[in-house]
Amino acid sequence: MAKSNLSSKTISKIIYLDYAASVSPNPSSIHIEGVNARVKLEKARKDTATALYAQPEEIIFTSSGTESNNLAIQGLLVGCWTPEFWVSNTRQLSHIITTNIEHPSVLETCRILEQRGLAEVTIVAVEENGIVDTRKIKKEIKDNTVLVSVMYANNEIGTIQPIREIAKEIRHFRKNKKSNFPVFHTDAVQAVNYLNINVEQLGVDLLTLSGSKIYDAGRVGVLYKRKSVKLMPIYGGGDQEMGLHPGTENLSEILKFSNALQSVQKIKEKENKRLVKLQDYFFMKLEKMSKAGFDTNEVGVVINGDRENRLPNNINITISKIPSDLLVIELSAYGVMISSKSACKSSSEKGSYVITAIRPALDRKIGGVRFSFGRDTKKADIDYTVASLIKIINKLKKWYY
Amino acid sequence: MAKSNLSSKTISKIIYLDYAASVSPNPSSIHIEGVNARVKLEKARKDTATALYAQPEEIIFTSSGTESNNLAIQGLLVGCWTPEFWVSNTRQLSHIITTNIEHPSVLETCRILEQRGLAEVTIVAVEENGIVDTRKIKKEIKDNTVLVSVMYANNEIGTIQPIREIAKEIRHFRKNKKSNFPVFHTDAVQAVNYLNINVEQLGVDLLTLSGSKIYDAGRVGVLYKRKSVKLMPIYGGGDQEMGLHPGTENLSEILKFSNALQSVQKIKEKENKRLVKLQDYFFMKLEKMSKAGFDTNEVGVVINGDRENRLPNNINITISKIPSDLLVIELSAYGVMISSKSACKSSSEKGSYVITAIRPALDRKIGGVRFSFGRDTKKADIDYTVASLIKIINKLKKWYY
Repeated sequence: MAKSNLSSKTISKIIYLDYAASVSPNPSSIHIEGVNARVKLEKARKDTATALYAQPEEIIFTSSGTESNNLAIQGLLVGCWTPEFWVSNTRQLSHIITTNIEHPSVLETCRILEQRGLAEVTIVAVEENGIVDTRKIKKEIKDNTVLVSVMYANNEIGTIQPIREIAKEIRHFRKNKKSNFPVFHTDAVQAVNYLNINVEQLGVDLLTLSGSKIYDAGRVGVLYKRKSVKLMPIYGGGDQEMGLHPGTENLSEILKFSNALQSVQKIKEKENKRLVKLQDYFFMKLEKMSKAGFDTNEVGVVINGDRENRLPNNINITISKIPSDLLVIELSAYGVMISSKSACKSSSEKGSYVITAIRPALDRKIGGVRFSFGRDTKKADIDYTVASLIKIINKLKKWYY
Repeated sequence: MAKSNLSSKTISKIIYLDYAASVSPNPSSIHIEGVNARVKLEKARKDTATALYAQPEEIIFTSSGTESNNLAIQGLLVGCWTPEFWVSNTRQLSHIITTNIEHPSVLETCRILEQRGLAEVTIVAVEENGIVDTRKIKKEIKDNTVLVSVMYANNEIGTIQPIREIAKEIRHFRKNKKSNFPVFHTDAVQAVNYLNINVEQLGVDLLTLSGSKIYDAGRVGVLYKRKSVKLMPIYGGGDQEMGLHPGTENLSEILKFSNALQSVQKIKEKENKRLVKLQDYFFMKLEKMSKAGFDTNEVGVVINGDRENRLPNNINITISKIPSDLLVIELSAYGVMISSKSACKSSSEKGSYVITAIRPALDRKIGGVRFSFGRDTKKADIDYTVASLIKIINKLKKWYY
């Protein structure tokens, strides 16, 4: 009945009396405006899946990359929690393997789960070049390991992890044990703009994306979840996003995200080449600067993280003796906005735990500074930045050299 | 050093090389653009606090009302979770009291905590009029009760709960026991546009707001947390929002929210009066319609929820014998968008658990339909809506009467 009328085109007038649901139509409503919103949402889900070579039902929209990472980790654990589980004398906590340079939304999540007595966690240290040794991951996998979480590319030093290799080892372990575990998760938030995100080729089961790191993308997160992986919600609430992200869908931001992700895929190869050239140029300028030594023969520039296996938009360096926070503030006064550590941990501990992980002997105050490029970055910006840096070092050297 | 330069006004050129932090400046960065963003964020926090008669450090911005409700509940529980806690034979789970008509983000959260063996939960049934009896809440409070969560106004039937009375009983219990518990939380998502949200006068310790229910407000949630209440994060990640909502702050949406909340406060009284008149008019038209009986003497209209103690923008009725979902779809074909249950539970169970809570004998398919008004709603909209409703019932009566 009235089904034939179910197109808003035939309606001349809309009276919206669903303000208590939300001030604008939302995809969970069954009226026409809700149905139209639902159609748009599912189109965005399909387009996002296509970019990842995944299925639409494997895409969960969340509010942020932080939420996606938490859902991947915590959502996997809570499945076995029942009143009986907690009183059992033979219960075994789930084991998680991760690395010591993961984003705080992975590393801190593992830490609080361990502190709260909810999981067993092994943190594998990366090598001096900021890359994890696959054999070290492999060595830690055991029968109660439910999850391995290794980021695709690091947010501070840009190093790219051997995701395919790790995936291969995990598949091998699962096949031998005839087990579905461990599940393999990667945080691809920093990688998405520049690296291959084909989940089949990568061999990952869970993959995190964030709109805040993609041009013109909305403020949403995505969690790719392979169909065979079962997650349980962290939050109680409605059943939006398969119950894994309860709450009214943020449709406008989701639409922006799926469009932006498609654009990224189109220009990825070209943009990659352009940025590699800029990166080479920046490194060349820094080498010259370092060799010049500013008349002191003492100013050294060290590149943090592997020179080759890194994101094309990332430069992370330590300038000997000068605190990185000071360099950020001084450059900021020249109009150059850079960073000295993950903005996500800024107000807490001193220095960067990522730099400390690869250079434990370095004074935490010195740390490293990160220059990260984007679509608007040009060669002239690098010239200006390095010129400013030289002026700053010349000004500061009387105090620090 | 260079501190005197720390105003972006003196900088003629900005080179943004912090794309890895986010594609636009975020308040956690220490460069000038980050500092400017931080200033705006803290201004929004102060303005939001002022609207609630709270302190800025008591305001936590989250991604949604659902997240705020989860943080209020789960954030209070996890504090006692340690490896020792889980193996102790004498450990006592925390006890939560709530009602059977709470929003899914409260009710389902309590349910999953109980199912997972993480909490003890008591769900108090509301009375036939959709209002909870304070004495029934009081009766359930015991020594291990850490939280009482009662919504300020219901999202489906608009009934207003006796928050001040409940707060008084809780204070009384705490004083007698010399305890900080139970803490009192209210979900004020539906109430904020029309009711007093002065947290001191209400006597609540935790209060949830959502931007999606306020005009021109951004897609953010707020949790008011009294200074004396200690919450722990659900998500691991950065230390934004006191560590309770990790992830880059959604500055643009937060700014929209604080502006919109201030507007709400200004027009609340006037808008309330206007909507009460519209509501009375709607009820009067429905009564007439019901009395007319459509030549069958069988069509009855029943108001769901208390006639007086309800939000001025809420009408929830049952039209005898006609399934509510059908009415939503039929009215939608006339261009009138209404709802038959919480959009947050739409795709799951049949019917509304709120209507079932107050009218357990009613067929779940019949349920109730909700008309919720907003700033744009006019008397003519109600005339059109009721006229459409009469046409629909006349069409359907051959099948249902």
